[in-house]
Amino acid sequence: MDQDRRTRLAPDERRRQLVALGVATLVDEPLEALTIEQLAKLAGVSRGLLFYYFGSKQGLHREVVLAARDGMLNATRPVDDLAPLDRLHSTLTRTVQFVRDHSGTFYSLVRGAASGDPEVREVVEQARVEQADRVIAVFLELGMPDTQMLRIALRSWVAFAEEALIEGALTTAMASEQIVEFLERSVRAVAASVGTESD
Amino acid sequence: MDQDRRTRLAPDERRRQLVALGVATLVDEPLEALTIEQLAKLAGVSRGLLFYYFGSKQGLHREVVLAARDGMLNATRPVDDLAPLDRLHSTLTRTVQFVRDHSGTFYSLVRGAASGDPEVREVVEQARVEQADRVIAVFLELGMPDTQMLRIALRSWVAFAEEALIEGALTTAMASEQIVEFLERSVRAVAASVGTESD
Repeated sequence: MDQDRRTRLAPDERRRQLVALGVATLVDEPLEALTIEQLAKLAGVSRGLLFYYFGSKQGLHREVVLAARDGMLNATRPVDDLAPLDRLHSTLTRTVQFVRDHSGTFYSLVRGAASGDPEVREVVEQARVEQADRVIAVFLELGMPDTQMLRIALRSWVAFAEEALIEGALTTAMASEQIVEFLERSVRAVAASVGTESD
Repeated sequence: MDQDRRTRLAPDERRRQLVALGVATLVDEPLEALTIEQLAKLAGVSRGLLFYYFGSKQGLHREVVLAARDGMLNATRPVDDLAPLDRLHSTLTRTVQFVRDHSGTFYSLVRGAASGDPEVREVVEQARVEQADRVIAVFLELGMPDTQMLRIALRSWVAFAEEALIEGALTTAMASEQIVEFLERSVRAVAASVGTESD
């Protein structure tokens, strides 16, 4: 095929490249706006090739969201050998940075929870679970009792942080450091408000 | 028509009754599952009458979500002549009660944010704005400075509370009072974590 001669990429590599190009479109447009036709034009490949790889627009969206999610989780991965609160600070600093550098990706991920496609919602939900687990690990290491309420509180704080990041980091010019400090204070405050009854 | 003779309702009343029946189906099934056919059977009216009133399944969903949202906002309306923290306690107590008494409605509302229909999402978003305004009013009355960060914090806390209500009030047998107290402590902690810099 013409495309194979031009780029000489192995199919896996070509597929990854197409997905990355799809993620890049999130900078300017929400996931819903991404179509097979548009990506075919951008990539200079045939619609047929995209249908061959992704099956449908829905299939394309799922892979794009998965790649966007993994990109965010990788960029904000905790540094294991830091002390708990330093690790939290480092993760939150990179999270705010990611949100500002990749605002469209972050927005699509958070609002991907608002996708009509249950598989897309599930991919986004997994990111929340992972982020909650990271925060829960910090407070357990700090010696908080592992209660149902603590876990509910910190999972709920992830929803809080998403909203605060959209409203603070995306829609205002507030200093990143100020947002990071607010997130740190708020998560410690929420954890403290759980109390220490073991329930 | 047969239905008119049987029930002798004015069209407005009949329409409200159909919407209420639609809201009632949320007890057992999510909004997505509600169809014109199903509601026609439940109400003992023709599909044609439902199409006449609502135009489409989407139109039906919008009215059902609107009625569900207004039901929740009414049930949790602040009692104006209470002092700020007592008013907060009263609102949160009735919120937890509403969530437990109408779990399907609440779930559909919160997950209605996950609807593929922008109009349904907008209806749900308006409920969040209203709930945030209620909480913001409490803390301004308590004398907190009206900063951008306070508003972001409390709007984000509404997302926190939704998640905590789903996880705490819907999926556990935790005492309602314990959930109310946790919500009160968490919102005060979040407000306090804003700090008092006027930004």
